[in-house]
Amino acid sequence: METSGKHADLSLNYDVVRTLLVGFLRDETHNAGFKKGVVGLSGGVDSAVTAHLAVEALGPGNVRAILMPYRTSSPESVADARTVAEALGIEAETVDITPMVDAARAAGSTMDNVRAGNVMARQRMIVLYDISARDRALVLGTSNKTESLLGYGTLFGDMACAINPLGDLYKTQVWQLAAHLGVPSRVIDKKPSADLWQGQTDEGELGFSYRDVDMLLFNMIDERRGVQELTAMGFKEEFIHRVQLLVRNNQFKRRPPLIAKISHRTVNVDFRYARDWGI
Amino acid sequence: METSGKHADLSLNYDVVRTLLVGFLRDETHNAGFKKGVVGLSGGVDSAVTAHLAVEALGPGNVRAILMPYRTSSPESVADARTVAEALGIEAETVDITPMVDAARAAGSTMDNVRAGNVMARQRMIVLYDISARDRALVLGTSNKTESLLGYGTLFGDMACAINPLGDLYKTQVWQLAAHLGVPSRVIDKKPSADLWQGQTDEGELGFSYRDVDMLLFNMIDERRGVQELTAMGFKEEFIHRVQLLVRNNQFKRRPPLIAKISHRTVNVDFRYARDWGI
Repeated sequence: METSGKHADLSLNYDVVRTLLVGFLRDETHNAGFKKGVVGLSGGVDSAVTAHLAVEALGPGNVRAILMPYRTSSPESVADARTVAEALGIEAETVDITPMVDAARAAGSTMDNVRAGNVMARQRMIVLYDISARDRALVLGTSNKTESLLGYGTLFGDMACAINPLGDLYKTQVWQLAAHLGVPSRVIDKKPSADLWQGQTDEGELGFSYRDVDMLLFNMIDERRGVQELTAMGFKEEFIHRVQLLVRNNQFKRRPPLIAKISHRTVNVDFRYARDWGI
Repeated sequence: METSGKHADLSLNYDVVRTLLVGFLRDETHNAGFKKGVVGLSGGVDSAVTAHLAVEALGPGNVRAILMPYRTSSPESVADARTVAEALGIEAETVDITPMVDAARAAGSTMDNVRAGNVMARQRMIVLYDISARDRALVLGTSNKTESLLGYGTLFGDMACAINPLGDLYKTQVWQLAAHLGVPSRVIDKKPSADLWQGQTDEGELGFSYRDVDMLLFNMIDERRGVQELTAMGFKEEFIHRVQLLVRNNQFKRRPPLIAKISHRTVNVDFRYARDWGI
């Protein structure tokens, strides 16, 4: 770690966090008129934590895990996802996305890894939303605050959901919460990867560790520290600028589509109720 | 029409609207660091209007039309989309979504029309976003205010876009703007349809006409009139309640996913810059 200062491990009171997030999932699901939730289980820690919280909030009979491997997905990912579902006693349904993805790849001819990865994430969204319609269930999100701020996720893909219990927790906090909830340790300990192509790891692709970037993001965003203060804390200037740019350039992924204003009541400008408005 | 009162035809000054929307498309595209736009052309009036405005804003060489028929799509829709692209002098690229949709339908077994329609809309989103990445172009939206308020569209499907010039215009206003822009009259005059299955029309599915619901929405939303006032204007109480319910129940489609608040700077709660923040 190249940081000093308080909250050096970003730890929270995970008893309180757990109570808050379980209440959030239960209230928001019920307010929307639903009893059930669906989670895409990847074998990674984020979706495992969402599934754990959802089972506490809704009961194991009301949570369904969907496993959506592609032909290049690592068999360990699928096995880990199964372990999580079995430990929670929830039903796991597997949908092989290979035919859907390959049909899209054939339509788009020469796709690089990034484009193909986005297609996979979006085909998974299609499967999850279709199952949510079939089962009258809400799609529960699994994107954490680190991914959201860095834009490290696919818009209308893995970032798509109805409600997201993890969106305000940094990756390091998700790890800590996972340990608190009793998520299997091999799921917590493995290297984070979107598993979109072989050998991919988040940290390799991003070029920095979650531990470092979370400390920087916490100080930059939550504590509103400027470049001078951050460099004084030991963060390298290049690193700060690179992360600032990622946060700014990916703002569009966190906002609804921009609508040209014509009337005096424009959707998401001056017409913006809470999503459970009127219920 | 069962209404009286001012603005009975919701007409606007379309010279001003055109200037505003062309400026919006140009500024927002350039602010995001792009020169090009892509539009999914369906053969309907909304996407035709977006394409017209985009050509004025960006030039015909910077706008690409994508035609995405499914095997059940009406041949007239495809022909009309081609007519629009040819009249504008823009390149039209056709991607048959049948293999992608059928792969998803096979995965989801017995899908009703609504679920299948959502899959089609979302497969089109995947194609459009993939082409936008290939061409370094923005996806230009085509959802109007009537659809947005009624939730008559697919979340992460046809409602997905980067920027939307039509989101603050009611369908009747889109028709009027289309005439002003010189959109081919057969595109303006035909019955609106999502063309997701044969014989589908928007008005048949909704159970009311765009003309009636636009007058009601304008008075309810823009003019903030209550039930008493609306009934005094001649709107039937059942109609008012049905539309109120649609507007409220579909609020989730207009908002980003809901994130559980933990920190004091939560995405879309107290961390919400404009999408071109910092540029």
